[in-house]
Amino acid sequence: MTTARRDTYTPETLLAVAVRIFNERGYDGTSMEHLSKAAGISKSSIYHHVAGKEELLRRAVSRALDGLFEILGEEHARVGRAVDRLEYVTRRMVGVLTAELPYVTLLLRVRGNTATEQWALERRREFDHEVAELFKAAVADGDLRADVEVRLATRLLFGMINSIVEWYRPGGRGMDDEQIAEAVVHLAFAGLRTEE
Amino acid sequence: MTTARRDTYTPETLLAVAVRIFNERGYDGTSMEHLSKAAGISKSSIYHHVAGKEELLRRAVSRALDGLFEILGEEHARVGRAVDRLEYVTRRMVGVLTAELPYVTLLLRVRGNTATEQWALERRREFDHEVAELFKAAVADGDLRADVEVRLATRLLFGMINSIVEWYRPGGRGMDDEQIAEAVVHLAFAGLRTEE
Repeated sequence: MTTARRDTYTPETLLAVAVRIFNERGYDGTSMEHLSKAAGISKSSIYHHVAGKEELLRRAVSRALDGLFEILGEEHARVGRAVDRLEYVTRRMVGVLTAELPYVTLLLRVRGNTATEQWALERRREFDHEVAELFKAAVADGDLRADVEVRLATRLLFGMINSIVEWYRPGGRGMDDEQIAEAVVHLAFAGLRTEE
Repeated sequence: MTTARRDTYTPETLLAVAVRIFNERGYDGTSMEHLSKAAGISKSSIYHHVAGKEELLRRAVSRALDGLFEILGEEHARVGRAVDRLEYVTRRMVGVLTAELPYVTLLLRVRGNTATEQWALERRREFDHEVAELFKAAVADGDLRADVEVRLATRLLFGMINSIVEWYRPGGRGMDDEQIAEAVVHLAFAGLRTEE
């Protein structure tokens, strides 16, 4: 790597490059060589920052997962009627997805071939479970219709939210994250509520 | 390929094998060698059926696209109030997705690197456009709320439907395609209608 530029990376900025390449090539399809070329620094410089590509993956998906789990700890997710807490969580999920787009995109593509991927899938399941529990509580309160099975409804709601990564580009096309969150909530909840 | 079994394939059954491998490895990541191994016949036997892997891709995505475009020609998609036609199309899209799962999965993953992929993306855009037009007509009729932008609502609706490929497995978990279609329609339309 005679063309390698001086290593001015921090763990954070190196992570941003790695996540871009993971999303482009897939995690399995990315080698340390690819990362080294994309970052313009030598492999040994990368090893100065991290133990290897799996550590980069872990840091990247942790950033997405931390963003999601933080939501559950927020006041509006903990206090109030379950249906309102669920709406709040939905809105905030869109916010985390758009704010941390490459990290959430990577998280959603994790397949489970390594220990880190298995761990990420497990954490995603925990998050989904928490949201499904909120859903159940809202049905028990009589605020959400009982004729749509909770697991199916949760999957469709998550499917709708997660599909946003396929087309959302920050700053693009005049559609901001609040408009999108509003549309998701309208679509899902005005439909699922027993009455308005 | 001394272990190759006798070629008992038809173009249809060979297609099913190819689609499975395309979905597992990605179209770009699949070679004729992979297809030959998966099918258990020689590459020249495959060339006896098709000109190459791009022809297999074209046949596969055509099957998905034909299924989708057929919906638009059906009576309930052509006659009646726009909102009812849109509900009908939504329900039938879930039906095509579940009936032609591997073909639709492949279609949704097409990236656009070859002429066939470009063509498939173009056809998908045409289909999306037709559905968005129905959506607009239903808003103009006053049957769907006007405060959710049509393109955004169409994207979210398609996102919800398309996400089903991530978890639906035929015959699995006691959830059939009609229940899923019903849930999608409940979620989206009871929410989007101005009144029930």
